[in-house]
Formats: sequence, C-alpha cells, structure tokens
Amino acid sequence: MTTKGLWTDGRLRYGGDWNPEQWPPEVWREDVALMRAAGVDLVTVGVFAWSRLEPTPGRYTLDWLDQVLDLLHDAGIRAALATPTASPPPWFSLAHPDALPVTADGVRLHHGSRDTYCAAAPAYRAAARGIAQVLAARYAHHPALALWHVHNEYGTTCHCAYAETAFRRWLTDRYGDLDALNDAWVTSFWGQHYTDWAQVAAPRATQYLGNPGQLLDFRRFWSDTLLSAYTAQRDLLHAANPAVPVTTNYVLGDWVPVDHARWAREVDLVAVDHYPSRTDRGAEEQTALAADLARGWARHGAGRPAPWLLMESAPNQIHTAHRMHTKEPGRMTRNSLAHVARGSGGVMFFQWRAPAGGAERFHSAVVSHVGADTRVFREASRLGASLGRLAGTASGAVEAGVAIAHDAASGWALRHPGMPRDGLDHPGEVAAAHRALWHAGITADLVTPGDPLDGHRLLLLPALYLASDATVDWVRRHVHAGGHLLVTWLSGVADAHARIRPGGYPGAYRDLLGVRVEEFHPLADDERVPLTSGGIGRIWSETVHLAGAEPITAYIGGVLDGRPAVTRHRVGDARTWYVSTRPDDDTFRRLLTEVARLAGVGPTCPEAPPGVEAVRRRDGDHTRLYLINHTDRPQRVPAAGHELLTGELVAEALTVAPGGVAVLREARR
Amino acid sequence: MTTKGLWTDGRLRYGGDWNPEQWPPEVWREDVALMRAAGVDLVTVGVFAWSRLEPTPGRYTLDWLDQVLDLLHDAGIRAALATPTASPPPWFSLAHPDALPVTADGVRLHHGSRDTYCAAAPAYRAAARGIAQVLAARYAHHPALALWHVHNEYGTTCHCAYAETAFRRWLTDRYGDLDALNDAWVTSFWGQHYTDWAQVAAPRATQYLGNPGQLLDFRRFWSDTLLSAYTAQRDLLHAANPAVPVTTNYVLGDWVPVDHARWAREVDLVAVDHYPSRTDRGAEEQTALAADLARGWARHGAGRPAPWLLMESAPNQIHTAHRMHTKEPGRMTRNSLAHVARGSGGVMFFQWRAPAGGAERFHSAVVSHVGADTRVFREASRLGASLGRLAGTASGAVEAGVAIAHDAASGWALRHPGMPRDGLDHPGEVAAAHRALWHAGITADLVTPGDPLDGHRLLLLPALYLASDATVDWVRRHVHAGGHLLVTWLSGVADAHARIRPGGYPGAYRDLLGVRVEEFHPLADDERVPLTSGGIGRIWSETVHLAGAEPITAYIGGVLDGRPAVTRHRVGDARTWYVSTRPDDDTFRRLLTEVARLAGVGPTCPEAPPGVEAVRRRDGDHTRLYLINHTDRPQRVPAAGHELLTGELVAEALTVAPGGVAVLREARR
Amino acid sequence: MTTKGLWTDGRLRYGGDWNPEQWPPEVWREDVALMRAAGVDLVTVGVFAWSRLEPTPGRYTLDWLDQVLDLLHDAGIRAALATPTASPPPWFSLAHPDALPVTADGVRLHHGSRDTYCAAAPAYRAAARGIAQVLAARYAHHPALALWHVHNEYGTTCHCAYAETAFRRWLTDRYGDLDALNDAWVTSFWGQHYTDWAQVAAPRATQYLGNPGQLLDFRRFWSDTLLSAYTAQRDLLHAANPAVPVTTNYVLGDWVPVDHARWAREVDLVAVDHYPSRTDRGAEEQTALAADLARGWARHGAGRPAPWLLMESAPNQIHTAHRMHTKEPGRMTRNSLAHVARGSGGVMFFQWRAPAGGAERFHSAVVSHVGADTRVFREASRLGASLGRLAGTASGAVEAGVAIAHDAASGWALRHPGMPRDGLDHPGEVAAAHRALWHAGITADLVTPGDPLDGHRLLLLPALYLASDATVDWVRRHVHAGGHLLVTWLSGVADAHARIRPGGYPGAYRDLLGVRVEEFHPLADDERVPLTSGGIGRIWSETVHLAGAEPITAYIGGVLDGRPAVTRHRVGDARTWYVSTRPDDDTFRRLLTEVARLAGVGPTCPEAPPGVEAVRRRDGDHTRLYLINHTDRPQRVPAAGHELLTGELVAEALTVAPGGVAVLREARR
Repeated sequence: MTTKGLWTDGRLRYGGDWNPEQWPPEVWREDVALMRAAGVDLVTVGVFAWSRLEPTPGRYTLDWLDQVLDLLHDAGIRAALATPTASPPPWFSLAHPDALPVTADGVRLHHGSRDTYCAAAPAYRAAARGIAQVLAARYAHHPALALWHVHNEYGTTCHCAYAETAFRRWLTDRYGDLDALNDAWVTSFWGQHYTDWAQVAAPRATQYLGNPGQLLDFRRFWSDTLLSAYTAQRDLLHAANPAVPVTTNYVLGDWVPVDHARWAREVDLVAVDHYPSRTDRGAEEQTALAADLARGWARHGAGRPAPWLLMESAPNQIHTAHRMHTKEPGRMTRNSLAHVARGSGGVMFFQWRAPAGGAERFHSAVVSHVGADTRVFREASRLGASLGRLAGTASGAVEAGVAIAHDAASGWALRHPGMPRDGLDHPGEVAAAHRALWHAGITADLVTPGDPLDGHRLLLLPALYLASDATVDWVRRHVHAGGHLLVTWLSGVADAHARIRPGGYPGAYRDLLGVRVEEFHPLADDERVPLTSGGIGRIWSETVHLAGAEPITAYIGGVLDGRPAVTRHRVGDARTWYVSTRPDDDTFRRLLTEVARLAGVGPTCPEAPPGVEAVRRRDGDHTRLYLINHTDRPQRVPAAGHELLTGELVAEALTVAPGGVAVLREARR
Repeated sequence: MTTKGLWTDGRLRYGGDWNPEQWPPEVWREDVALMRAAGVDLVTVGVFAWSRLEPTPGRYTLDWLDQVLDLLHDAGIRAALATPTASPPPWFSLAHPDALPVTADGVRLHHGSRDTYCAAAPAYRAAARGIAQVLAARYAHHPALALWHVHNEYGTTCHCAYAETAFRRWLTDRYGDLDALNDAWVTSFWGQHYTDWAQVAAPRATQYLGNPGQLLDFRRFWSDTLLSAYTAQRDLLHAANPAVPVTTNYVLGDWVPVDHARWAREVDLVAVDHYPSRTDRGAEEQTALAADLARGWARHGAGRPAPWLLMESAPNQIHTAHRMHTKEPGRMTRNSLAHVARGSGGVMFFQWRAPAGGAERFHSAVVSHVGADTRVFREASRLGASLGRLAGTASGAVEAGVAIAHDAASGWALRHPGMPRDGLDHPGEVAAAHRALWHAGITADLVTPGDPLDGHRLLLLPALYLASDATVDWVRRHVHAGGHLLVTWLSGVADAHARIRPGGYPGAYRDLLGVRVEEFHPLADDERVPLTSGGIGRIWSETVHLAGAEPITAYIGGVLDGRPAVTRHRVGDARTWYVSTRPDDDTFRRLLTEVARLAGVGPTCPEAPPGVEAVRRRDGDHTRLYLINHTDRPQRVPAAGHELLTGELVAEALTVAPGGVAVLREARR
Repeated sequence: MTTKGLWTDGRLRYGGDWNPEQWPPEVWREDVALMRAAGVDLVTVGVFAWSRLEPTPGRYTLDWLDQVLDLLHDAGIRAALATPTASPPPWFSLAHPDALPVTADGVRLHHGSRDTYCAAAPAYRAAARGIAQVLAARYAHHPALALWHVHNEYGTTCHCAYAETAFRRWLTDRYGDLDALNDAWVTSFWGQHYTDWAQVAAPRATQYLGNPGQLLDFRRFWSDTLLSAYTAQRDLLHAANPAVPVTTNYVLGDWVPVDHARWAREVDLVAVDHYPSRTDRGAEEQTALAADLARGWARHGAGRPAPWLLMESAPNQIHTAHRMHTKEPGRMTRNSLAHVARGSGGVMFFQWRAPAGGAERFHSAVVSHVGADTRVFREASRLGASLGRLAGTASGAVEAGVAIAHDAASGWALRHPGMPRDGLDHPGEVAAAHRALWHAGITADLVTPGDPLDGHRLLLLPALYLASDATVDWVRRHVHAGGHLLVTWLSGVADAHARIRPGGYPGAYRDLLGVRVEEFHPLADDERVPLTSGGIGRIWSETVHLAGAEPITAYIGGVLDGRPAVTRHRVGDARTWYVSTRPDDDTFRRLLTEVARLAGVGPTCPEAPPGVEAVRRRDGDHTRLYLINHTDRPQRVPAAGHELLTGELVAEALTVAPGGVAVLREARR
C-alpha cells in the first residue's frame, strides 16, 4: 500500500476539515471559492456526519455528500473522506444503550457529546462497519477521493461487560495460561492470585491502589481493540478500491490508550493532529517534537523515511488549560512550516469554517464567525501561496544524527499509583531531552525500541521505564556496534510487565552503564539539587555506585554530597552515559551538546544564530535548509543557494525576517 | 393579587424563621415573649415541618401548629406560614424511591439532608399538593396568617427518567418540531442530529464537552418545572382564601436553575434570602446589589415599583467558603437598613432560635445557643425599635437614573464548557458595573430585557451574552428614544439559543455601537492590560475595528497596542459606548461616572462624603434620604429635614455615626 | 488473656512482615539466613495469603505454610501468623458480588486492590471465619506460633443494603425506641423525623449537608461492626489454643472508622502500624505521639501499664502526599528506639523483602530490590544487635505526670460539614498539645475519657468536642480530687450525640472553668492573632466572659481587643485553665511549661540539652533513661549509670552521638 497518490504532483497538500453539513449549499459555494483563493487543494469531509448520512437506521441520505464531492472535484480540490464513526447518531444510542461506554466507577455515559460508544460493543462495531461499507460502496472510485480518513482521534475506553469479556479474551491470547498471567501481574502481592479466567476483570473502581500489571495490560488491550476497530474499516475500504490510501488521525498525549508506533504499521499514512498547549517558546518546542514524533512513526511503519501529514492544526487560537490564546500574526505560518520542515507532506487545519454552535463553537477556523475579511484568512492565503513554492519536498528524509527512544507503555506505567513520586512523565522526559537538543541546534529522530538505528551515532533513553528483553537486546546491539548511549533515571528499572528487575537499578542496563543504583531519592516539585558541573538537577536523584563507570558530575550537598550524578562508561568503541537526575533545561542542553559532540554529532546549521531553528532535508541530489526565525529581529545566516519562498539567489548569507521562515535549496553539499 | 395586607399599617415588618417544632411549648412561650421584646411582628413557621405535620402518610398532627399560630396571634405577631415541601418526610423517601433525585452521573441521592426529591416526579408533586391543601384548608382563614410562604429556596434539579420525559415534553412545546430543535441546538455539529423525539434526552454524563443548546434549555426547563411546582401550590392556596398573598423565597446565585425575573410575574411578593459571602466592604456592595435585584424583580413582576421583602438574612455570622465570620457590632443593623433603604418592606432573619443539632447547628440566630443575654439579641431589639420609627416607607420607589440589564440565561450560558475562557461570569460582570456605580454614589435599577425603561437615561449591558431578537429590539428602542447605552464585551455575541451571531462581534449590537470585533484575546487571571486612559483592563480584550464609532481609550502594549479599548458612537441623540475589556474597579468607576454624567445622571447625594452610601426614596410628597456610614469615623452630610431614627430636626447638616445609619425625611425637593 | 508468652525471655522482639508466598523456596532459605544475621526473632506471615491458602472455595493448600513455619521454627524464629481476611481471593469476589463494598455514592467497588469486601455482608463474614478456622485447626499448636495477627488494618466501610440493615439493628440496640433516636439526631431540624425504623438509613449521597448525628453514629456503627468481625475470629482462635495471644494491627488517622480505645479491651496486645508523614523534626514528633497513643490504648485495655508492639514501620522510605522520602542513615534506628523507649516490646517492619510487583512494589523493605548488600540491611542488622542489649524492658511503665485526653468520636464530629470552620481537627489539636510538651521535655500519657488518672497532676482536653455526661463527670472528679485541668476551645461544646450544650460555650465545663463563651470567631488559615503574653493565636478565637476565672492573657486588636484569651480559675485545690485559641507552637510550649510547672510537673530530664528527647521507664528497681539525640552534633547529658548499648559505665555524664541513642540504666533514683 502506498500514499503516493497523494503527492504524485510533488506538491504539498493544503486544507482542513470542512463541515458542509452545517451549512446550506450557498455557503458551500462561497467556501469553495474561498478555498481556491487560499490555495487549498485537500479537505477533510464527513468526520462527524453520520447522523446526516444515516438519519435513521438503514436509511441513507448521501445526496448532499455527492454534491459536495462533485463541487470539490469541479474546483480541483480533493477530499479526505472520513468515516463518521466517532460520533454515532442519537438513534444508535437510543437503540443500543448497552453500547454506551461505562467509566471505571460504573457510570454509563450518554449521548450528548462525541465518542460516546464502547468500541468493544458488538452493536457499535457492526454499525461502524455498516456505515463505512456504505461510503466505500458509493465513493471508493469518486474522482475527488484522495484519502480515506477513518474515524477521528481514536482514544476512548470503556469498562462495561463487553469490554471486560474482550479484555479476558485478549489476556488469554497474550498469556495462554493463568500461571503466566499471575506471574506477570505478581498477583501473589495482596492475595490476588487467579485460579479461573472468569475471575479476571477489567480494572474498576476498587478500595485502594490497583494492580500495576492489570492497569498496564488494560491500556494495551484498549490500544489493540481500538486498532482492530480501525483495521476492520480499513480492510473494507481497501477492498473497495486498493488504490486509495487509508489512515486515521492520531491524537497525542499519554492519556490516550493508543500505542501509535504499533498502529503505524497499519496505516497507509501517519496523520497527526497537533495543538500546542503553550503560547510562548514552548509552542515552538512542542511543534518540533510533534513533527519529529510523526516522522518517527512514519519511519517505523514504513521501515524507512516516509511522508506523513499534519492532519489538524489550529489556524488561530491555542487552547491552554484555562483560556484560548490568540496567535499573534505570523505564528500560524511559522508553526505550519515547522511541520513541513520536519517532514509533513502538507498543512491541514481544523477547521475551515467556524460553526454557529455546538461544543466547539469557539474553536478557531480559517473562516471565522466574522467571515473571511480577517487577518487570519489573509495569512492563510499567503501560506497557501508559500506552500505552492515548496513543491517537491514531500519525503520524510530529515538529517538527524541522534535518536531518542520513547514508548507508549513506559508513559502509561509511570502514571500508575504507588510510584516513588507523583508526576512521573515519560513523554515529558522525552520532551525535555528533545528540547535540550532543539536548543542546541541538533536535530533528532524519535524512535521506538526495535527501530533501525543505522544513521544514529547516539541513542538516548529518557526515563524509558519498561524494558522488555527485546528492548535490552536492541540497546545492547546498538552499543556493541559502536553506537553511543545516554540513559536517564528510571530507564530499564522494570520489565515489559512493569515488574522490577532485581539486583540494583537500572536492572536492564547496569552492565552497559557500569553502575549500580542502590536507592532513589525523589525530589520535591520545587527542589533543585546543585551539581559539580555547575548545573542543576530536578525531580529525582539516586545513590549511584560505580561499577566500572567513571564519575563525570557529582551531587553537591545533602545525603548524596559528592556521589556521582552523571557517569560515563566505555563499552568497546562506544561510550555510555548514565544521568541519575533530570538536568534542568540549560544543564541538559550543555550536557547533550557535549555528549553529542563526543559522538560526532553537531548542530544542523552551526552558523544559525540563537533563536533560528534549522532543519535540513534531502531533496533528491540537493538539500533544503529550513530556517525558522523565532526571534523578533531579523537574523542573518551565512548560506548559499536558492531561497524558494522569495525566489532569491543567495550567495553568502540570507536574512530571515522576524518571526519568518526561509527555505534554502542549498548548493550541493 | 396584592400584598397590601402585609403593609396596611404602613409599618415595616420584622421577624424571621421560627421552628417551634424543635422545642417544647415552654420554649415557645419564652420565644414569643422575646419576640415581643425585640419588636418582632412577623415570623415564618413550618418551613421544614412536614414530618411533624404528617408523620405517616395521610395522618396529620396539626394541633401543635394550631397552638403556635394561636399563641402568635394572641401576641399580636403574624405568620408567614410555609408549606413544608422542601423537605419531604422519611416515609416519603422510603415509599417513593423513584422520586429521589438523580445526578448527571446517574447517582441516586438519598434522604438525609433537605431538598431530596425530583420536582418532576409525579409522587412528589401529588404529595406536595396534598400537604399544601391540608394547610390551606386548616389555616387559610386563621387570623394570624399574613402570608403563604411556599416551599423554600427552589433550586434543585434532577436527571431521572421523569425529568427526562418532562424535558422532552417541554422541548416539544417550545420547538414544535424537531427541525427547529436541531437548528437551535446546532446538532449538525458532532453529528447530534435528532430524527425522533425519543432520542432527545437530558444532558447526562457524557464523553466530552456537551451541547450548549441542550445545557441551556435544560436549565430553562428546570426553571419552568420548579415554577409549575410553585404555581400548583399557589393556586390552591389562592383558592382557599384569595385575600392572602402567596410567595416563595428566592435563593441567589447563577448556580440556581431559576429565572427569577420570569418567576416574579407569579409571586404576589418578591421575597429574597440574602447572605453576603464577603466580610469586608464587599458585603456592603453585595447587599446593595441584592436589594436592587429584588427591587428590579418586584418591578418586573408588577410592571411598576412594588414592595419586596428580605425574607432571610443572618443575624450574625457570614459564611464564606471556609469559615464563618462573626459580624462586628452594628454590621447587622447596617446591612438590614441598607435593604430597607432600597425597598425592602421589612427585615427577616434566618433564624430566630439556634437549633441544638442538625446540619445547620452553627448557623447564626437571634437567640443563640447562649440564649438572649447577648450583644446580638440586644442589637436585634434596637433594630426592632428603629424599624418602628420608619413606618410608612414600604413602597419600592427608589430614585435611579441608570439601568443595568441582566438575565439568568446569559449567566448560565457563560458557564458552559468551550467558552474562550474559564470563569466567565455574567452576574459577576453585573456586580462589577453595579459596584462601580455604587462607589460613584449613583443609584441603579437592575432590569431584565423587556422591562420598561421610562426613567432611565443610561442602560448598561454587562456581558449580556445572549440577545434574543426581542432583546435587540428593546435595546434599539431605548437608543432610538434618545437613551444612552453602554455595552461591555461578549454582550450580544449569541442569540437566545446561544448560537453565535455572525459577521463580527457583537453581532446583535454592531450597528448601534459602530464597531466590529474581529478577535477575542482573553486574558489570564492575573493579567492586567494598561489603557491610554491611565486605567487597567482585566479578564478580556479584543481586536476592535471602528465602523463609525470614535476611539475613547486604547490598549497599550502587546498585539493590541494602540487599538481601541473603549469606543463611543452617536445614534441620533443618544451616545453608545463599547467597552471591550473589563475595567478594574477604579477604572470602571471613573468610566461610568463620566458616561453617567454625559447622560445627565449624577450621584444620589453629591454632598455625601466617600464611604457614605446614599439612597433616596419617594415617600408620598416627600423624599427620604437614607445615609449609611460604612466608615469608622463620624461623617457630616449637608442636608435638611427630619431624622426619623432619632427624631432630630436637621437644619443644615447631620452627622452619621461610625458604622451607623440615618434616615432623613427631606424638606420637599 | 495475657501476652506474656511473647516476652518470657525478657527480650525485645524484632522482625517484620514476610511474604514467602511471593517467592520460591530457595529465596525462603536465603531470607531466613538473612533474618538470623540481622537478629530477627519474630516474623508476620500470611497477611494477604488467602488466595494461596484457599485457591478455590474449600480447597486448601497449606503445605507451603507448613514448610515456612517449620523453617522458621528450625531457625529459632517465631511467627505472628495472620488470618488473611483483609484480601479475599478473586473467587470470593466473583461468587459474591453482593459482598463487595459500595460507596456513599452507590458505586460498587471491585476486586483489584485489597480490602474489597463489606464487613457486614454475611458471605464475607462466613468466609472469613472459615479460613481463620482452618488456620486455627492446623497451626494453633505449632511450636513457631507466637501470636495470632487477625486481618490487617481494619478500617473500611460500606453503604450497601447489608450495611444499612446492620446499621438499623445497631441503632435499635442503642436507642431502643425511635423517640430517643429522633431526639439524639435532632431530626426536627429539616424535617427528618422518623416514624418507622424502616425509614432510617445509612448516610448516602444526599442533596446537601447531612445530619451530624447520623454521620457520627454511622462511624460508631462501623467501629463496632469491624470489631465484631475481629472478635469472631479472635474467639475461634482462642478456642483452638487459649495460650496464644490474639491481636490485630491498628492503622492510625481519624479517617479510620475505628475507636481504638474501645478495641483495646478486645485485643491481647495493642499493636500499631506507624508511618510518619513528615520528613523533618515532624517525623520525630509523630513517632513520640504514636508511641504514646499505643501505650495509652494498652493501658486502657489492660487497666494498667501493659506492653504493646510496633507491628509495622518502614525500614526506609517515608511516604508523603506526593513522593517517597528516603530516610537518611540513622533515622530508622532512632525512630525504632523511640518506640521502644515509649513502651513498645519490639520493632517490626513492613516489610522484610520488597516485592517484584504489585501495588506497593516501591514500599521500602529490609531486603530491597537491590538485595541485602545495602546500607539499610546493615543498619537493620546493627539495630537487631542493639535490641538484644536492651533485654528486660518490655513493660509499658513510662513516667508521665501529664495526661492528654483524646477520643475518636470527637475527631469524627469535628470533620462534619457545617462546623464554624473547615479543617477542625481533634487529633491535630491533640498532636499540637503533645508536641508542645515534647519540645518542653515533658512526657505525657494519652488517655481516653474514663481512664484512671492516678499519677497525673495535669489533664489536658484539646478540642475534645464531645462530652458525654460520663466524660464530664470524669473531668469533674479529677479536678475535685485536686487535679489540674487545661481545656482548649471547642471542648465540651457538644454532648455525646454532637448536640450543642446550651447556655454558653463550653457547656460541659463552664462552671469548672469559670467562663462563659458568647461567640466564636474562627480565624482564616493564614491569620495570626497577637496575645498580650507576646504569643500568637491561630485557627480560632472567642468572646470569653469571665464568670469567676481570672484573665491570664488577652487578645490584641480586632473586635476581641483586650478580651481574655487564656483564663485561670480555682476549684478547691485545683487550678483550671481555659485556652480560647490555638497557641502557635512556641506559645503553646511556653504556656504548657508554665501550667505544668504550677501543677508540679517538670521535664523528664531537665539536664538534657535542646534536641535531645528523654524518656524514663521503670525497670524493676531501677529506671532506664532513653536519650535520643535529634541534632547533628554530639550532645553531653549529665547522668550516671550503665549505658546498655555500649556497656559503658557513666559516672557524671554521657555523650550521645549526633542522631544517636543512648539507654542509661540509672543508679537508683
């Protein structure tokens, strides 16, 4: 299966979610005219349209969608046609109360929002396949159809009897016999030993702390169950027309019970929704990380660099916990092109036109409540033109010498109750390492344990708590092949079932690192520990014994005074580093700069001044250098080549405008 | 229907809630003697007495109430006789578990507190009518009976099947057909389109954000359902003796699912319970606002100035979120007379005697756990004497040149999830405007859209989010008649169904204001935006485009630097103002002082020094000037007339004691 | 019944919870060897082993336990054999869903943690007796058996129909007729008057504030119900072998629905689990308090000084709200010996070996994940040796001249909603008084109302809110016998049913104290009130009228300026003190030092420098002086005798090492 059809013209795609079902046809025509004006060539339609496509069970009203697709086709715009299964119609909820989801407390959720179904309920599964089949039959060969967009942001769970039964079946498949399950979950603790499969249940509200193995497997089960809901639709869509690629859009965050890496093998195209939660420089850091994650998943699924797509992003407001933050002029363009720089095959917004009501009435849109006579629409139109000038770069090949490992299950396991500290956060530790490299100008790939590490001189494991034997072997092979390694606290402490590996932490990597950790000393949220390097540690500290490694940095003060904080060990040609605390941002940046340097990895563009993000991508025989100026001053970058957005020829240096972006087709390097 | 009977003697009423059912008869006699000593002439009895009046179904034990009413009558004290329907007896809960309320999560609540019933449950409705009928039959002509006090603080909701069925019926009546409902609720968003009434449900716990239209209508439905519970009792009480007025006591706060303005048409007397939540100057501001709200509702129901009654207030402690605050000497008197100044026909306390146990054992009382040898009882007795000297003022006619519009539904809608900011608070914005005027010495009326605006030169709309077409028309008529208008941010952004009015904010009032708002910039809680006026904006800011208006004040700094914050427009003889941020208290006071001045409205008593609250009321041919000294020093006010509390004749000026009150019958003005 | 068998050798016991069921036999043998190396002679086994002892209903697999007990016996280690009823097996939950607990909200809890049963459910009671009987039959005469350890930390409640029925039966027993219950609960408030026992229910989720009498009795009911679950097992264990003592381990905290004093009469040995929640000096204060509480309960149950046992403590980490805190070297030893000083007959840890998984995988252990080559194992071994040198002190006789009264029900009642302030905390007030004395070097006994007060010159009542008539009489007898008394705010305000005692606070003790309190003035959390003594009051203040007492200290500022804060009264030979605010720590220490001095009570060891805790115990004809140095410097204490840990003879003074402990067998005093 291939997504090539999406990029046969070599151009970047541009568009967003469009909901014509919310508007009368005259607005459709206005919208299509505005899309053309803005340079849009791909729109997602039908995401939540089930109740308009099948208003009563088995009665289909597809005429409006026929018209919409024809209208798009006539305008030269292609469609990512969604299956609407993330929002079953009211009639479904009324007819199948047993298919409504149940919380861990036993509360049955009701119609009134979206995603109110249990993906393990037979009635839901059947109805979802049904509407997908109807759409497949009708539109699989429609000339406007570019991509199937199955469902929306898979990510809900349920604790009902169907879910429990399915969980039990999944466990049976996974463990074969109860002894293995009892062993994996350490049910000898607190007398939870199972003697019959019927005793094994979903983790529900219970008296006190739950079993970590059960909690972890329930997440894994849901990832697989949601994935099977996806593949059931994918398979019938493929069957209707094998030439059309199929995907679903990922929602990010470790609250999501989805192992996106595992899913990446099942989608024809990795598609992510990205909404930064911060409004300052943090938004830029999050954007770079999200794009690198997506590129990593695309690589993981494909086994090689592959295009991916930013499927949703906000044309304007950033939602933080308590309010919406209006993006200042230029930020939307800058964030969009940062995704393109890191491999996205285009830019898609949620949403094209703001709804008049509904839960997300104040979510931002290209065409806002005000209309199209707005600075946002004008900026979007300019971005459309810019994307047109960047044709030919839709491959995922970004130059990166460092790999950062992450995995969904480690994130889930660190959230379990009973850990030595609240707030343990594997994705946060991954982000901290990525951010440190980003500020050092070093481009990284995000990898999942097991991914090929051919071009990576340095592998980072940031609080990668779980280590299956296969993961340990993968790390070991990297080091024995001469690859450098940096491991941070809590990595490898547990096995794949979240059982503690004995004999001293970090059980999985003690020998590779030449250390033995005797005790954890978690820090308070506001605690800062000085290090002999002049740096600062946060969140965590440990009693580290040297077992071959040499101390690089030590703790200052407290019971750990003088003991190693950071160590280095030699394993054949490789150097391995152990970092027993979380360096603060500046300390981490300095440490990783030095570790990368010793590994032979430097900044992508050493000449770029601070605040200018640089990403380099292969472009056939050439390279393209993306330069993103996050400062409020013009920045001069020594470089030579052809600037694609302006058409300018650059001989010695180019100046990137404040908050602006330049894309240089470099003279052959 | 008229409440005249309550005030035929021209005297202010005085008393409170009395619960003789908690005590033996010897305490009754002691209480009545103490009441007489304190000047009490009206007491509320029976509020929570159902289980003592009907201890088992259909068996009535009314003798004690006979005795109590006779005892009161013999002592010259009249009764506000309550129907006890806010607290069904234990036997009712046991017999009718289906009439117990259910939360949105599906949790059935149980007996053990008060108000534990579903007002949509047939069994509850029947039982409530039943006990009311028994009381009507027995006491409708009792000579002590002055007023029927139906229920207590209507304000609870339920999500059970009865409630859901009733909601569906209410929606059918409101919308006629499903297309109208689908349109009003914008069900095309997230695929919530209904095709059968049976699919429409109460908003229950759901997966994610709920539908704003559904949430809003559920509140309206509950307001109407509770109202019908009230009118069912009212009608049978009226039928038993048309001469006795009927009311129920309002509890304030936008958590209450009651549209008090709408209810005002159905009560013979607006009666409010008021408990300030603040202990400092804020308590005085809240008192003035509550009294003005009550007067507005009384006016709304009556279509003209009408008396109202402070039905409950605390003789001592103020309850804040975390503790009770004992009122310092004089505060109780000052707060009580502030209500009288603003139109209350008397002062009623909750409660007369503190209970020995029960949930509110530490709620304050005139006769506390200590007894009557207390400073509180002595202050209450002095207040009784003072009220006697203020006879003849029980009409609602307070002089006010400014009207502040508010409505319950805007308050509810701003609390919905998915707004651009958390903490949006229509009553809070109304309070901010009222507070600004209060500090400026300007008396305001609180009005509901549609109310007559004959004497008001200036109308304020503070974050009046919803604007029905009728509301828009009402505002327009005011302006076209030469009335001035000041509109603050978010007003008129949505229609009556909380759908966004398109084309630029504030959709309803753009043309009247001569502005077009392109984008919202909600501020963080601790954010302060400087304005060119020297003032400060909080909570909110906007990109305002002038479309006829002139800029008055601009933002300083940030992306809005130099753009208009406050604008003024001319529409015929009227001036209209738009305020796109929330001025802080001082800024708002200065702005409204200036706007009122231009509208020809000044302070009630320009001579009153700062900290002295002044309210002027009509009193036949004379006026009465209430002067309330909130400072801790004596304050001299130039004035002439007859001071009613001391009997003193004032020639040039009078001095109001620290924390004291004076009431001047003014020489004819 | 006697516990003498536990201490016939005069030696202190040492050990902890051991869970061989989590490990293969080769680990058992390693563990036993390590235990011997560490000086361990008592281990708790089987606490959560039900699912391994009875894997399916009625099928018992006891062989492994046979082997474990034999192995221990062979090694000279005795067993505290647990009944495993705190964690029913999965098969039990599956077979008896009706025996799973239900929250106040009606949420049924499920298997997956521990303690997931309703102790009022017949099926659970029967199953628990069943497994206990099996163990009794098999092991009652096993030579390794030293003690039966019933269940674990009784402390859960339930709101199911079984619980409700049992609650009703308990109430019927307590009150006899409904009139008494109506009276006790003041059901006349909010119309809660019951007319049939069937109407009386458990306190479930309700609309608003619940009834305080009902809430209090529900706690008492659960204490009694859990106690009957305990005694049912105890009786059958006793029947199997009357020579073996039976106990259960207490978990501390006023969230626990257990009146430990009442339980103390039913256990052969008071056993407590103690985990400080603080990491600084607060941990030492908490340790001293917990030990004194345990000693008080032991005395209460026995009617005379009696040994008790620290049944669980942490060999390493302290769990605070958000993280685990690793104990610095020496702290474990110091905390352990502080318990011994105050009467514990030994030191027991939870747990011996850290589990590989399960909810408490990071709970500390003597043998950690790392193994036994750790500083913790080495410290534990040294402690084992030290305990061996302290043989012969296992009696509860500690010298103390002050008694602090506390009772579980006052703690529960102050947590009820509707109190004048949030955060009222009887155990916290007890702790504050104890802490003040601890810092003054004065040793106190903790007593429960009714306990003999023979040797106590001074009795403290710290916020002892409830006062039954018997309690009042007990206090009165103490004072009339010449005992001094200090009462703090809120004490005696309510009777045993939490009804307010009328006529002025504190109703129960007004005459003894010579004061009458008219009004409460609760303070805000961050409020501090200066006193004329130079001290500071917190949390609470009051309007105190003198009625015979003399003022000692007055409030400064505010409405209470110049009014009494602390008073003193003379009753015969006794002095009685009333403290109407919570003195801050320093103020309280100074006040209690002075009050104790006047009562003739001084520090235990006046020569001990600050930071050195001193406890003196009878030891036959001698006394033992425990000196615990909580500072980080050596401390010299003038004293003479025989230091038991080092064997040194002390002539004039001994020096206690930083963070160290000395135990001096004193020359006859």
